[in-house]
Amino acid sequence: MQKKLMEKFKKELLEISYLGSAVAVLHWDQEVNMPSKGNDLRAKIIGSLSGELHNKFTSDNFEKLLLELRKELDAGKLSDKDNCIVRETWREFSREKKLPLDFVKELAETTSKAQMIWAKARKKNDFKLFLPELKKIVALKRKEAKLVGYKDSPYNALLDSYEPYMDVEEIEMIFSELKDFLVPFLAKIKKSKVKINSNVLKGNFAIEKQVKFNEFVAKKIGFDFEAGRLDKSTHPFTIGFHPQDVRITTRYDEKDLFHSINSTIHETGHALYDQGILLEGFGTPLGESISLGIHESQSRMWENIIGKSEIFWQYFYPKMQKDFSESFERIKLSDFYKAINIVRPSLIRTEADEMTYNLHIILRFEIEKDLIEGSIAVEDLPQIWNDKFKEYFGIKVSSDAMGVLQDVHWSGGMIGYFPTYTLGNLYSAQFFNTAKRDILNLEKEIKRGQFGHILEWLRKNIHIHGKLFSAEQLVEKVTGEKLTSKYFIDYLEKKYSKIYELK
Amino acid sequence: MQKKLMEKFKKELLEISYLGSAVAVLHWDQEVNMPSKGNDLRAKIIGSLSGELHNKFTSDNFEKLLLELRKELDAGKLSDKDNCIVRETWREFSREKKLPLDFVKELAETTSKAQMIWAKARKKNDFKLFLPELKKIVALKRKEAKLVGYKDSPYNALLDSYEPYMDVEEIEMIFSELKDFLVPFLAKIKKSKVKINSNVLKGNFAIEKQVKFNEFVAKKIGFDFEAGRLDKSTHPFTIGFHPQDVRITTRYDEKDLFHSINSTIHETGHALYDQGILLEGFGTPLGESISLGIHESQSRMWENIIGKSEIFWQYFYPKMQKDFSESFERIKLSDFYKAINIVRPSLIRTEADEMTYNLHIILRFEIEKDLIEGSIAVEDLPQIWNDKFKEYFGIKVSSDAMGVLQDVHWSGGMIGYFPTYTLGNLYSAQFFNTAKRDILNLEKEIKRGQFGHILEWLRKNIHIHGKLFSAEQLVEKVTGEKLTSKYFIDYLEKKYSKIYELK
Repeated sequence: MQKKLMEKFKKELLEISYLGSAVAVLHWDQEVNMPSKGNDLRAKIIGSLSGELHNKFTSDNFEKLLLELRKELDAGKLSDKDNCIVRETWREFSREKKLPLDFVKELAETTSKAQMIWAKARKKNDFKLFLPELKKIVALKRKEAKLVGYKDSPYNALLDSYEPYMDVEEIEMIFSELKDFLVPFLAKIKKSKVKINSNVLKGNFAIEKQVKFNEFVAKKIGFDFEAGRLDKSTHPFTIGFHPQDVRITTRYDEKDLFHSINSTIHETGHALYDQGILLEGFGTPLGESISLGIHESQSRMWENIIGKSEIFWQYFYPKMQKDFSESFERIKLSDFYKAINIVRPSLIRTEADEMTYNLHIILRFEIEKDLIEGSIAVEDLPQIWNDKFKEYFGIKVSSDAMGVLQDVHWSGGMIGYFPTYTLGNLYSAQFFNTAKRDILNLEKEIKRGQFGHILEWLRKNIHIHGKLFSAEQLVEKVTGEKLTSKYFIDYLEKKYSKIYELK
Repeated sequence: MQKKLMEKFKKELLEISYLGSAVAVLHWDQEVNMPSKGNDLRAKIIGSLSGELHNKFTSDNFEKLLLELRKELDAGKLSDKDNCIVRETWREFSREKKLPLDFVKELAETTSKAQMIWAKARKKNDFKLFLPELKKIVALKRKEAKLVGYKDSPYNALLDSYEPYMDVEEIEMIFSELKDFLVPFLAKIKKSKVKINSNVLKGNFAIEKQVKFNEFVAKKIGFDFEAGRLDKSTHPFTIGFHPQDVRITTRYDEKDLFHSINSTIHETGHALYDQGILLEGFGTPLGESISLGIHESQSRMWENIIGKSEIFWQYFYPKMQKDFSESFERIKLSDFYKAINIVRPSLIRTEADEMTYNLHIILRFEIEKDLIEGSIAVEDLPQIWNDKFKEYFGIKVSSDAMGVLQDVHWSGGMIGYFPTYTLGNLYSAQFFNTAKRDILNLEKEIKRGQFGHILEWLRKNIHIHGKLFSAEQLVEKVTGEKLTSKYFIDYLEKKYSKIYELK
């Protein structure tokens, strides 16, 4: 009886996922292929299918099935896997159920409009233009928190969409440890006599040749091109239709080869996670990634810990020198390595090095939390942003366009998203520390361009589980410890003390 | 009241069309982009959405609405346009109602998978690999005919999907007139002293340069690249998601530039029809093409009557000589013109000249009709194919890959489709005969690379009407006569008598 119920439930979930995959294909095609005139009707098609998706997920039929299984869950009658499926579907369902359709529509319309106005405001460097929209969004997100319900801080209700089971208190504790390390350490770097010349990265790189090199790197580190593609788009992204078809995109800059490589390695990290989730879980939470933070841990480990390490480039740099000899023939590996790791406080988050990047995040987290808790006013944002920026980075913000207006997230209603970037860094360092212990010759393998073992380790320890464990449980299961800032701090300290010759 | 009903009905149709467009995007992506491992789940996703489409189209709600409008139609209360919408939707609806959901799903999943297997079988020249899939498909299509119901031959039930209102009897009559002309005329050509050297078309043509030339031609004859794309695929095709996003594909051969150009012009002909259908008709039969035969008349007119005429190449050949000077610099236009029009019985339909092409179609029509009527067995196909081929073309088929496995149609369940190609030839000659009368300087314009008037003529007379008229009505409305083989026969006779210097 219970087994039959579960089968029926999974079948419903599968139908929902098929529709979700179709919507994902439509999104991917829109970004990568679609001709300009196709835009209006594509938006309507996606809107129609998304509405259908919502209808299926909140139908009476589906609710009835879910409620019955919820009873089985509470009675402790489900296997671990079925428990995960019902528990996580219930979480998502009950959240969606709490948001009235009118509210969902208002939020969608407000953010859709706000994104256009934000783009204009950023272009015109005019925060006042964006202010009324941002006020509306903050009010709506505060309302969302109230509708969803929360403990302690309303921010927890929003964070929960992106990093389930995490809360403000834990983030504040970890971020404050990180800040306590970062600010004085950056000051030390600033005083270092080592001067890095990042101009060695500049040159003229034909796009077709870049594409080939990017494909080579992605393939080498484990991306399965029979189960995915690498294409071009304005903003790089990864989208998995299912584990057998995962698409990544990157952006090419004719003057800067490393720009595309860096972004490809990052997206490949995401894609390896998506390709590594077990196919038999498809359609259920067992076929979904744990959280944005854990997803980001995969992209950041490949992008930074591995992809910006000297041993990684000991393997790839000779090929790069050969393929792009005009630019790199006379540049030493050690100079190339330093150039891709230059630490330089700067205004724009997406261009930041892996160290100062986290200060960008901490700043945004503090601000958005205060906004949602109501302890600061939206109109004061530019002043607050600029003051904090001066304090953390020692830089004066030159304009709101380069400051508080730089990111798309708030205009899109994505409040509670930012902390997952730095959580990803923390998770990645803690995971990698364990992987190094578990894989005897990991460094040697990386030097030889062999990534099979590390990928297998990630598959086995992280990817294949889907949502079976929470992020907290997974970290403890894999590393034997709760999430801590110490591995990331230790990693940064060692790496950059060496580069900047600090005592 | 009736107006309100109609509005409600159109809204329902629109939602169905959105879903249909999404399925079309999934199909296009499958052919053009999808990595190989994505196939199994893509088949299921397409199957699921197709099932959903069927559900929506055959829901009680939709049926009730349609039945009410059907009453209005019968009472003669509808405008011409609304009449078309209700009449054509009714036709499709009553057909679909007869097909159970399980059947529709099975057919969609079977054909989606079979297409991948067919591609492998063709590559490996292994009919046996494809045999189990084809058996399933033929059985399913025979079942479909039974479910739908038919007069005389079960083949009529399938033909009706592609060429509504047409039947086996009429096709057999027209095809026999054509065969009566073709066979003796081909014999005359064979005896002609004119020997055409088609080797002048061979050379080395870099794919990237070919792509550019193909884009140039497609754009010149009117394809709107802001409302469409041109890509590569194994089997060239055109698919319109809606008039603002129409995708064409072509196949490139490094040794043969004209191969891709010919196929691009053909697909552009289809695409011009799809781009020319009025946007406001989208979602209803007013936004759909009349029939495959009429669709094919557009592609064939551009490909053959225009695109293989001497006046067309008077404009394009000098550019081609310039862009590919190594190959064409010393080849005269008259020799090039003869080479692209060489008449030579050959194995592959898609590479056939415009004369023998029709024998390919007649052969396929006879075979698939016998398959559906059950008078031949699927396992005997290679033998039957090869015997018939010997009889009609006087050629021995060298391999199944070059014989019975060459076309994608059967693997996609498209049985009843082939005759529309030759019907397209017949329609195109009859339409073009009228266009020449209507457009004063048509020949001069084509010589100058001006295609605005002929495109406008096609838009006005054919494209914009959607399904407002049946093929039969349209032909009579535009040309003043019923469909006849005489214009096509006349066209072939004049053109090839000149090329082969026949009396």
